[in-house]
Amino acid sequence: MEKERFFKGLRAVFNPSSVAVVGASEKPAKLGFHVMKSLTRGGYEGAIIPINPSSTEVMGIKAYPSLTEYPGTPDMAIIVVPAAHVASVLAECGKKSVKGVVLITAGFKEIDDPSGALLQKEVALLADSLSIPVIGPNTFGIVNLHARLNASFTPEFSLVRAGGVTLVSQSGGISHLLGFLAMKQGIGMAKIIGLGNRLNVDFADLLPFLAEDEETGAIALYIEGLDNPRPLLEEAKKLLGRKPVVAYKSGAGTRGDAASRSHTGSLAGRGEIYDGALHQACIVTVKSPQALLDAARVLASCPGLKMNTVAILTGQAGPGMAASDVCETEGMKIAVFSTQTQEKINALLPPLAMRTNPVDMGPAWYDARAIEGIVRAALDDEAVGGALILMMFASANRDVLPRIKDFFLEWKQKKPVITCFSAPEGIWDEDIRILEEAGAIVNFPTPERAASAMSVLGRYKTLTLMPFWGTTKDENHSHPSQPLG
Amino acid sequence: MEKERFFKGLRAVFNPSSVAVVGASEKPAKLGFHVMKSLTRGGYEGAIIPINPSSTEVMGIKAYPSLTEYPGTPDMAIIVVPAAHVASVLAECGKKSVKGVVLITAGFKEIDDPSGALLQKEVALLADSLSIPVIGPNTFGIVNLHARLNASFTPEFSLVRAGGVTLVSQSGGISHLLGFLAMKQGIGMAKIIGLGNRLNVDFADLLPFLAEDEETGAIALYIEGLDNPRPLLEEAKKLLGRKPVVAYKSGAGTRGDAASRSHTGSLAGRGEIYDGALHQACIVTVKSPQALLDAARVLASCPGLKMNTVAILTGQAGPGMAASDVCETEGMKIAVFSTQTQEKINALLPPLAMRTNPVDMGPAWYDARAIEGIVRAALDDEAVGGALILMMFASANRDVLPRIKDFFLEWKQKKPVITCFSAPEGIWDEDIRILEEAGAIVNFPTPERAASAMSVLGRYKTLTLMPFWGTTKDENHSHPSQPLG
Repeated sequence: MEKERFFKGLRAVFNPSSVAVVGASEKPAKLGFHVMKSLTRGGYEGAIIPINPSSTEVMGIKAYPSLTEYPGTPDMAIIVVPAAHVASVLAECGKKSVKGVVLITAGFKEIDDPSGALLQKEVALLADSLSIPVIGPNTFGIVNLHARLNASFTPEFSLVRAGGVTLVSQSGGISHLLGFLAMKQGIGMAKIIGLGNRLNVDFADLLPFLAEDEETGAIALYIEGLDNPRPLLEEAKKLLGRKPVVAYKSGAGTRGDAASRSHTGSLAGRGEIYDGALHQACIVTVKSPQALLDAARVLASCPGLKMNTVAILTGQAGPGMAASDVCETEGMKIAVFSTQTQEKINALLPPLAMRTNPVDMGPAWYDARAIEGIVRAALDDEAVGGALILMMFASANRDVLPRIKDFFLEWKQKKPVITCFSAPEGIWDEDIRILEEAGAIVNFPTPERAASAMSVLGRYKTLTLMPFWGTTKDENHSHPSQPLG
Repeated sequence: MEKERFFKGLRAVFNPSSVAVVGASEKPAKLGFHVMKSLTRGGYEGAIIPINPSSTEVMGIKAYPSLTEYPGTPDMAIIVVPAAHVASVLAECGKKSVKGVVLITAGFKEIDDPSGALLQKEVALLADSLSIPVIGPNTFGIVNLHARLNASFTPEFSLVRAGGVTLVSQSGGISHLLGFLAMKQGIGMAKIIGLGNRLNVDFADLLPFLAEDEETGAIALYIEGLDNPRPLLEEAKKLLGRKPVVAYKSGAGTRGDAASRSHTGSLAGRGEIYDGALHQACIVTVKSPQALLDAARVLASCPGLKMNTVAILTGQAGPGMAASDVCETEGMKIAVFSTQTQEKINALLPPLAMRTNPVDMGPAWYDARAIEGIVRAALDDEAVGGALILMMFASANRDVLPRIKDFFLEWKQKKPVITCFSAPEGIWDEDIRILEEAGAIVNFPTPERAASAMSVLGRYKTLTLMPFWGTTKDENHSHPSQPLG
């Protein structure tokens, strides 16, 4: 498919002026009911056109018996009819000049019966001949939180806060898991994209599109297995310096591998081989779903690290040590302060032991000025790439909060500032929200997740410094990464 | 100190009929204010006796100028006066036959000035001569949630739900972190104990006491460094088969090590050496604060594994693969179903690929009977030690919930059932709470944490099967673990 046409189709999928729902229903047992609920209740402001041969109205909206009978041209169509009808609906989309399709229907390549794969091939040929990008089949759909477009069968996705993380996922389960986690953890997402069986839209096709998407700050990929990883690797490499990409590839274990092979019908491959290839393509890798969300979040919300070194400034020694453990395990260097910085810090703390990095600010517990001074000294140090600030707040030490807050609002992440400010409900939730929304900090509930997120920034920095063969001349053809398919 | 006297003192610390607060205050800048707030607002029903030379009343409770002038005998005393006064207050405790003390005051061994260590030695000698166990100094205090006793400077600890996890911690920061996490995650705790500078109550002293404590289901240790680890290791070994112990030792990295050495004034030692010694003492080890809480939670809430094998039953393939990855990495075996079990499962699922363990129950999404049948078949299989059940619920599939719920309530963890049931707020929170409180499941927000918790049960099972040298005759003297101090 010609690239400009394809992108135009994707733009229609994610920012449609009108959406047809082919298979819209008022029966809660039908997915077409849930899709209509998602669209109508999610705040989408474009036109919604329910298509159902036996209803004149769905959820109070005028319905049409078929796409052909609708007088206008829907920008995008969501298809939820049984698999056997999909080809004819797609043909109608072609006639109606629908630009893009989200195909939710299951019963294609993923089923045991070979007719499923055959049907998918047929529909793919049709979609390509009509130049229509089709997300799916066998997907929950897609969500664009900035457009308040919930084109999925899960109305609750609309509750996720709009932000910078775009998830492209090979699993509906993982998409739901991460969507629910984002919801509960207040993490902002741009788009949630369920690839399904990847009819003609795959990871590699979405990367250049998302590279140009202003709402996407970082791209998170959940990968189970790829028939041919090369296009993804090549496209990812082109994003270097433009937009960070992070991936969690499941199935690292042998059983997981076998499971993946059968589930997706594609080759999973050993975890380490994948990791190596993804790193060559400048994709940061992580080892769990929550880590994928956390990594994409900091990559979307923090400035890049200038160097791979961290200052660990902690209100209590224990959390600082826990963070230090993780940084060292995950390849992040603990910064060595300049003499000048160390002297400034020494002047603000009693001659207790833990004044070098990590710095235990505990002895200055009641002294907001001292804490601010220490944080400022560390952040000003040229040897410090970013700062991890860890403080547990309860009644007894909440008085230092306002000054710390003002400092971070003013400093505003000139270098990455990742925090674990932990407090019982009502002590500091609101202030943390304000600091996060101002882009002054990225806060995590545990020191280990904060440290792990900082280490992701470090690994991304390292990847961007790696020399690549064949990047100087013809990078599309001389890319050396091993074939994994 | 004689053991019976010592235990009597600890019982008074954790279940006092009356508590004196020496240094009680109405000034919010004083820790004595926060301690009084913790005691009075936490629901403690025994007598509270504020001691303050310049007040006749603190927070509406009659105060006495000194312990001596109080006519009765307080069971336990919390001391928050400046370090210089501690010895004389402790002497008064002796005269008054106070059984146990929580010494919150800082300024002892932890300060740079050698006078601090000297003072601590002096106070320790005094406490020992008076046969009074003293928790601290330099601690936030202790909390016994079942007695509604909050003997700490953090009133918010009273918000933690009463349950089975007892934390013994060398860091106030980690105690606060884990207390706040328990609060937010609805995890039940029995006791939260801040060891502080370990005047005469150390890890080793608390283990036999907690072994007999009916409210403690599992013991979580946060360790920074130990002068002499042998007593802890020997006491822990005696708990084998009686009460599970799990530890997070921070400072595994070199910098963390150095930090720990200076912070606690004791030798930290390389992570692997510690791990080995702890394992020999049947202590499960974990690598982060959240993992410590999670591990203690499942050890307190699940029956033991009969064998180290797990069935992974998942509503969506992706989360099952993520769980499988973690199980394999953390030493948990994926069970091989018996032919009979596999046939039962095959009969309930279409001939899709992922029917062996992990089992993708997705194709039976709307069929609660099939899902129940699969779960039952797997749990009935003698080759299955425990089950991980992972399901993401949203509007479209919430109908299967009631039947699944009834099944788990009836089955009630005859084998460990650890779940990741994830849903947007309002979809299933209340049911999960009911299932957890009935002891039918232990639920985690991510598949990786659920799988990691199951792996902890597996590692505990493995430790209990390990042969130990010298356990047959004189286990106190022939214990071979290397000295770490």
